[in-house]
Amino acid sequence: MTIQPNLEIEARFALAKTAAQEAGALAYRYFQQRETLVIETKHDPQDVVSIADREVEQLLRARFAQTFPGDGVLGEEYGLEEGTSGFTWVVDPIDGTSPFVNGMPNWCVSIALLQAGRPVVGVIYAPCHNELYAAADGLGASLNDRNLSLDPARTIRNAVTGIGANNYVTPALVAGIVERLLEAGGNFIRNGSGALMLAYVAAGRLVGYYEPYMHAWDCLAGYCLVNEAGGWCHPFPSQGAGLVKGAPVLACAPGAVEDLRQIAGI
Amino acid sequence: MTIQPNLEIEARFALAKTAAQEAGALAYRYFQQRETLVIETKHDPQDVVSIADREVEQLLRARFAQTFPGDGVLGEEYGLEEGTSGFTWVVDPIDGTSPFVNGMPNWCVSIALLQAGRPVVGVIYAPCHNELYAAADGLGASLNDRNLSLDPARTIRNAVTGIGANNYVTPALVAGIVERLLEAGGNFIRNGSGALMLAYVAAGRLVGYYEPYMHAWDCLAGYCLVNEAGGWCHPFPSQGAGLVKGAPVLACAPGAVEDLRQIAGI
Repeated sequence: MTIQPNLEIEARFALAKTAAQEAGALAYRYFQQRETLVIETKHDPQDVVSIADREVEQLLRARFAQTFPGDGVLGEEYGLEEGTSGFTWVVDPIDGTSPFVNGMPNWCVSIALLQAGRPVVGVIYAPCHNELYAAADGLGASLNDRNLSLDPARTIRNAVTGIGANNYVTPALVAGIVERLLEAGGNFIRNGSGALMLAYVAAGRLVGYYEPYMHAWDCLAGYCLVNEAGGWCHPFPSQGAGLVKGAPVLACAPGAVEDLRQIAGI
Repeated sequence: MTIQPNLEIEARFALAKTAAQEAGALAYRYFQQRETLVIETKHDPQDVVSIADREVEQLLRARFAQTFPGDGVLGEEYGLEEGTSGFTWVVDPIDGTSPFVNGMPNWCVSIALLQAGRPVVGVIYAPCHNELYAAADGLGASLNDRNLSLDPARTIRNAVTGIGANNYVTPALVAGIVERLLEAGGNFIRNGSGALMLAYVAAGRLVGYYEPYMHAWDCLAGYCLVNEAGGWCHPFPSQGAGLVKGAPVLACAPGAVEDLRQIAGI
């Protein structure tokens, strides 16, 4: 079978990779100057990350509009701008604002491209580690140009699972996830960035990632990466109105699907 | 008041900093070659980290013995070697073996120096981030030579708390910690290295760290760092037999002490 190149997707994949790195470099400058900016602007650290978030999203929107003016864009900061091309970019300019604002390295830029509700490009860039995770439909997934392919022998018992949560869900629900995962013989980390933990699933560093409520901009790039690395993702409602609502997110290596679906109850 | 220099401690503090970086560089070489070594040696990744752990601890023991042959050493891998000088080094060659073995950056070398059961030096080096956390009794705490001083305005509600757990405690106990912390308006991360999260407390990145059961080699360097940065630490039984047993660990910024003691029940 010959794989037919899809030039429309390939051109956007190339742009996603350069734009993620350019956006990451801009965010990183804010990250390094975080404390100075807090003092100079007399703002609290949360304001500084908000400014960085907006500037990075504006940079990404400008790059997409320059090359593909007919594409739609959905971003965490400025919402949905409909397009005409059939492609929609879905971006989180800084995923992991809590690590960012507190000076921890686990944050990233997340860029997905949707076609007919399906993520056909997923690029995640972690500036503090200079790691570029990139995947496109049928082209595989890579980390800094090294191909990623999940090991079917990894399970929740011989590897680590990532978890996330936010104020949309109750403390008791989060505690229940932790308890069921540990009872099943698993172990967990939570590094503060859901998008980055999804990239870690694609890279085989985590065997799975579960968060009971995430938005499209947090998860769709990671979903493309995990799919292309040979993993499984719980369907996300990314067509129509579902795109701007939240939903449960579960992505994992093949050997963790059954266990994590049971733990998540999905 | 003039601070009297304690030359015995200062000389050991200098050694701790150079030894931590040398040990970290050795561990980092294993980390980078992890996958090649697994293939070459036909071992699983857990064996590779065990080899690295032992080599790094042997390097540290050799450095201490060269300069201070009368000092005792307690290490995670080779246990306690009593000394005659009144000083005991307490080292964890690689804290965060789970991140290390899975290719994640959150691991570190942890070196404490005890005098009469009290940690008078604490040095933690995180090779993937090239961050050296260093503190000595009365000399303050620093991160890459920048002084660390905790902000009394940070609480569990406006900052992030680190948590840890292991197989010494039940899943229900861990879930209870998560639930009480979230119910109290807090938020948590768990990056996979308790020693590194304690260093993050000293650096103000986390407002506190709680783990219901840790060993001396996991926590004493972090305790010295947090104390010298102006934080509070729940006493660890580091004299006599207590030194090789585990105990609850809680270290935090001043504004988080009451909340976290209540959550931990200590």
